Amino acid sequence: MNSVIKFKNPPGVTATASVVGKEEGKGPLAHEFDEIFEDATLGQDSWEKAESLLQKKAIEKAIKKSGRKNDEIDILFAGDLLNQCTGSTFGIRDLQIPFAGMYGACSTMALSLATASVFVASGSASVAIAATSSHFCSSEKQFRFPLEYGGQRTPTAQRTCTAAGATVVEKNKGKVLIDSVIYGKIQDLGITDANNMGAAMAPAAADTIARYLKSTKTHPDDYDLILTGDLGFVGSELLLKLLKEDHSVDIAHVHNDCGKMMFYRENQDVHAGGSGCGCSASILNSLIYRQLCEKELRNVLFVATGALLSPTSTMQGESIPGIAHGILLKGKE
Amino acid sequence: MNSVIKFKNPPGVTATASVVGKEEGKGPLAHEFDEIFEDATLGQDSWEKAESLLQKKAIEKAIKKSGRKNDEIDILFAGDLLNQCTGSTFGIRDLQIPFAGMYGACSTMALSLATASVFVASGSASVAIAATSSHFCSSEKQFRFPLEYGGQRTPTAQRTCTAAGATVVEKNKGKVLIDSVIYGKIQDLGITDANNMGAAMAPAAADTIARYLKSTKTHPDDYDLILTGDLGFVGSELLLKLLKEDHSVDIAHVHNDCGKMMFYRENQDVHAGGSGCGCSASILNSLIYRQLCEKELRNVLFVATGALLSPTSTMQGESIPGIAHGILLKGKE
Repeated sequence: MNSVIKFKNPPGVTATASVVGKEEGKGPLAHEFDEIFEDATLGQDSWEKAESLLQKKAIEKAIKKSGRKNDEIDILFAGDLLNQCTGSTFGIRDLQIPFAGMYGACSTMALSLATASVFVASGSASVAIAATSSHFCSSEKQFRFPLEYGGQRTPTAQRTCTAAGATVVEKNKGKVLIDSVIYGKIQDLGITDANNMGAAMAPAAADTIARYLKSTKTHPDDYDLILTGDLGFVGSELLLKLLKEDHSVDIAHVHNDCGKMMFYRENQDVHAGGSGCGCSASILNSLIYRQLCEKELRNVLFVATGALLSPTSTMQGESIPGIAHGILLKGKE
Repeated sequence: MNSVIKFKNPPGVTATASVVGKEEGKGPLAHEFDEIFEDATLGQDSWEKAESLLQKKAIEKAIKKSGRKNDEIDILFAGDLLNQCTGSTFGIRDLQIPFAGMYGACSTMALSLATASVFVASGSASVAIAATSSHFCSSEKQFRFPLEYGGQRTPTAQRTCTAAGATVVEKNKGKVLIDSVIYGKIQDLGITDANNMGAAMAPAAADTIARYLKSTKTHPDDYDLILTGDLGFVGSELLLKLLKEDHSVDIAHVHNDCGKMMFYRENQDVHAGGSGCGCSASILNSLIYRQLCEKELRNVLFVATGALLSPTSTMQGESIPGIAHGILLKGKE
């Protein structure tokens, strides 16, 4: 079996939505997002509830833009970083849409969108949605320290974005097509520093990109953009190095990373860049979708990366397994 | 769109495997399982690592029985109850199989098997695996109390099974076919007692079963078995009541529940029955698969149920959303 799933009848993206928090709203992509929430609580009484509402907002906006009603959506694929994926489950429980929960850490946008695409391409669904979210405060609390502690972060640490994105996928419609998808294999080179996720995830991104190029017999020059998310500044450098050294592939001239794009590195205190499921989700579902619709980009190989650790696994001295799933998006000709 | 996904070319189950812990090995189904681990640690130095190994054992056994090699498996769908699904991610990281992480709490066996079936039926994969696990000790530690605390459990509480199951799905092969699948919608009737999961999940099971019967225009008499998992004794009674009262459907004569089947209620201190992703996974992949192969059962509507809560959501006073995914398995004629 070829590791790339190429669709005979590529499903189309008919609507996208992205919502972000205050800090993301100060970054260079601020004007691309559908809504910026100045209040990190979104009026809720916990960070977890705020994240759930953030994801719900993105999904509802995407559905509205698609012109569909909830009962026309056949299936929703979503997940997030919170324990037991409650960002998603509590966010969507009122929507009454058949729901398939997914877990891919920060790779969830690619994981859910790839799976939604397979369902629509095969006729198992007519309309599907893929979504994910992350929240700086719920993540810091769960994975690192309470915000009130004011812990210092290392230079390799990335900032979890407060952001959510949603994509509506339909058959024979849309200005942007999903050409093909590839599912990642877990890669673990023994990185144990939970403040250096970029290094833990770079080998997975390299493996997925190399497998995709080999399987499709294509070259980096065939793509307008190979977009990873979210390796940040440290992980991106490693990715370029790994691809060159292990696979003799140079993608530097077509590569960018969502973690590098979200914030102004000079003015915003974000160390190695952005991260979190919502980082690549909100950028794919705003800037990238717009550029594909407007033919500024012809094709984008989107490769979202995830670090499959838990605080418990780290405390038990385990290394950090990484994964990366890929999707080739093409503007309709 | 019809909420049931019915396959034109039903994929087949070509191998299954089930492994369980000591307590499950004392129950009425002991002789059905592939392996019983008398040592709950499986020789590992943490409960989490023990669970990961348990899941890996089930997957490796299933692959071996199928006669496949790891590099012939196109995709693996798996998830579990542990934070960030580390039962799965650390269990399978060495296998080098493309991996799609799923989260459905105790509904994960149906969720992962339904999704694997869609991939194989559509030709997106030739060989797929669905798997899940749970471990009594890792669950008690994470969701309730440290084992050493010796807390008393309420009569409505279920015992999380130490168990894992895996299913290999292939095209045009196998003695058991996946006829159709249905994805659940989240149901939340406001239950807040985290020691009464059966009650929280019963409405989801009722909704999925009622939608399946309505959509396929079938009647409970058309099935040899409608098998839920894992409502236990309390939730099963509620399910029968809800289906009668809200949907005028009586399934009592064809219903059983994996949570009721795993242990001897009289001799084993399990209160309202078994639970955990591994409960329905190990029973489906042993007893039920054998009975379908041997034509003791012609068809089984398998409806695994999940409670989509987290300890954090419970502490924040949230109610417990439930979900149930369904699969119709048929013995090949």
